[in-house]
Amino acid sequence: MLTIETLLPSDRDAWERLFRGYIEFYERTLPDAEYDRAWRRFQAGTAIHARGARDGDRLVGIAHFLIHPHTNAADVCYLQDLFTDRASRGRGVGRALIEHVANWAREHGCGQLYWRTHASNTTARVLYDQVAEHRGFIVYQRDL
Amino acid sequence: MLTIETLLPSDRDAWERLFRGYIEFYERTLPDAEYDRAWRRFQAGTAIHARGARDGDRLVGIAHFLIHPHTNAADVCYLQDLFTDRASRGRGVGRALIEHVANWAREHGCGQLYWRTHASNTTARVLYDQVAEHRGFIVYQRDL
Amino acid sequence: MLTIETLLPSDRDAWERLFRGYIEFYERTLPDAEYDRAWRRFQAGTAIHARGARDGDRLVGIAHFLIHPHTNAADVCYLQDLFTDRASRGRGVGRALIEHVANWAREHGCGQLYWRTHASNTTARVLYDQVAEHRGFIVYQRDL
Amino acid sequence: MLTIETLLPSDRDAWERLFRGYIEFYERTLPDAEYDRAWRRFQAGTAIHARGARDGDRLVGIAHFLIHPHTNAADVCYLQDLFTDRASRGRGVGRALIEHVANWAREHGCGQLYWRTHASNTTARVLYDQVAEHRGFIVYQRDL
Repeated sequence: MLTIETLLPSDRDAWERLFRGYIEFYERTLPDAEYDRAWRRFQAGTAIHARGARDGDRLVGIAHFLIHPHTNAADVCYLQDLFTDRASRGRGVGRALIEHVANWAREHGCGQLYWRTHASNTTARVLYDQVAEHRGFIVYQRDL
Repeated sequence: MLTIETLLPSDRDAWERLFRGYIEFYERTLPDAEYDRAWRRFQAGTAIHARGARDGDRLVGIAHFLIHPHTNAADVCYLQDLFTDRASRGRGVGRALIEHVANWAREHGCGQLYWRTHASNTTARVLYDQVAEHRGFIVYQRDL
Repeated sequence: MLTIETLLPSDRDAWERLFRGYIEFYERTLPDAEYDRAWRRFQAGTAIHARGARDGDRLVGIAHFLIHPHTNAADVCYLQDLFTDRASRGRGVGRALIEHVANWAREHGCGQLYWRTHASNTTARVLYDQVAEHRGFIVYQRDL
Repeated sequence: MLTIETLLPSDRDAWERLFRGYIEFYERTLPDAEYDRAWRRFQAGTAIHARGARDGDRLVGIAHFLIHPHTNAADVCYLQDLFTDRASRGRGVGRALIEHVANWAREHGCGQLYWRTHASNTTARVLYDQVAEHRGFIVYQRDL
């Protein structure tokens, strides 16, 4: 049975394993201190938010998200990070996390939920095409 | 001579004309009240921010942007709306606005500036490819 | 047991059902005469070629392909149409057809096999990403 | 004055310089023998075809193209290579070559002209969006 819940202090290690898997998927590395900082902010739950997917007592997926303003509509919710444990793929973990965040965002007055993915990530996009839409928008970024 | 400045109360009408041009470019419409609400928030300058490009005393371009948190890095700046008056295209207005916002974001502690565009908007992308990078990320969205 | 074979005169009706499914997938329609013309050309097997995937005695998939010259390399093989019966999806029919055509093309001196798909066809792309590469090239076309 | 013509034996060197520029643009290299082979085939004009854009007596652009069959429509023309001398950019050379090939293809019974470009080649795409359409199709390829 899959449940989606806030993360408890006892989830700290399991959460970090999953978040490291996510960071590695995009071939990035983070200083250890960033994991500490992120965890503290998730526990505070003011600026950024996290949820975990639990299969029995095992943490098998995570979602990180935040709300930000919009210049011409209601606030929007950005689902920044989403990751499912490799061993738990194909069982609806990602979908359950997305639906949970969508409900949470709606209850918090958001008019839209969005996220990014790499165009080449076709496996994830099969799911994303079922629960959301790619309307042709792409991201340009510049490190400052 | 092109200057980039905050918008003054006297820019209200010229700003709305430009913002309407932007909204129409993406084939959307906004209730009039949304223009009022956006303007008030830009004048407050807390959640969302605006700058105008002035050619002499004429407003020829606008940029709307905001800062939001990031789960594993410094805050980021989202340049949500960027528009240049049709008659002033090709004279560096968009580029000047982007550079201004990039500097502002850096001074405000942001580690990244980003924006979206439609993949088919190749004219704008010629500029964007010069001042930023499309690293292959695309947007999925879901109205709530 | 799946086998890939040339199409026999007795496959005419089953082939047309599949090809119609393919044409409908891309929301197109063809005059009936085009099905006749295509079939005759496939039976001739000079300019364009076809193979069928058979599951027992049932035709469950089709591939249409052709060889054309290349300005600076060996000839290339264009897999123009590929379709699997809806009821037989997920059982390797598409993959088996692609592998068969790739072998055939290699034996006929081709240096490359290629095909097109719509960028939004993420379900098919999960397979395509396993057997080939999207190297970032997109198609521009103009009806004459 | 820009004219589009078949390539003459006296164009051999100028043509190779342009074709090398094209090959380098895509970060590829070709053995010298491939240039010889391509030239001989263009001079024969049976399987593959070439045209040059001449500005006065200077060759400033080239187009290479071919016709191939289609499984369910008239033959199609593939514009495989298109290149304009760097010093002659922005003067309509590419557009003139495309229009010439489109006319030629129509006269030779083709129902469509198409070509590929890399999605990131936004400069070229500004022109392509004016003379043709990207209908969302992307290319998958596999070396044999």
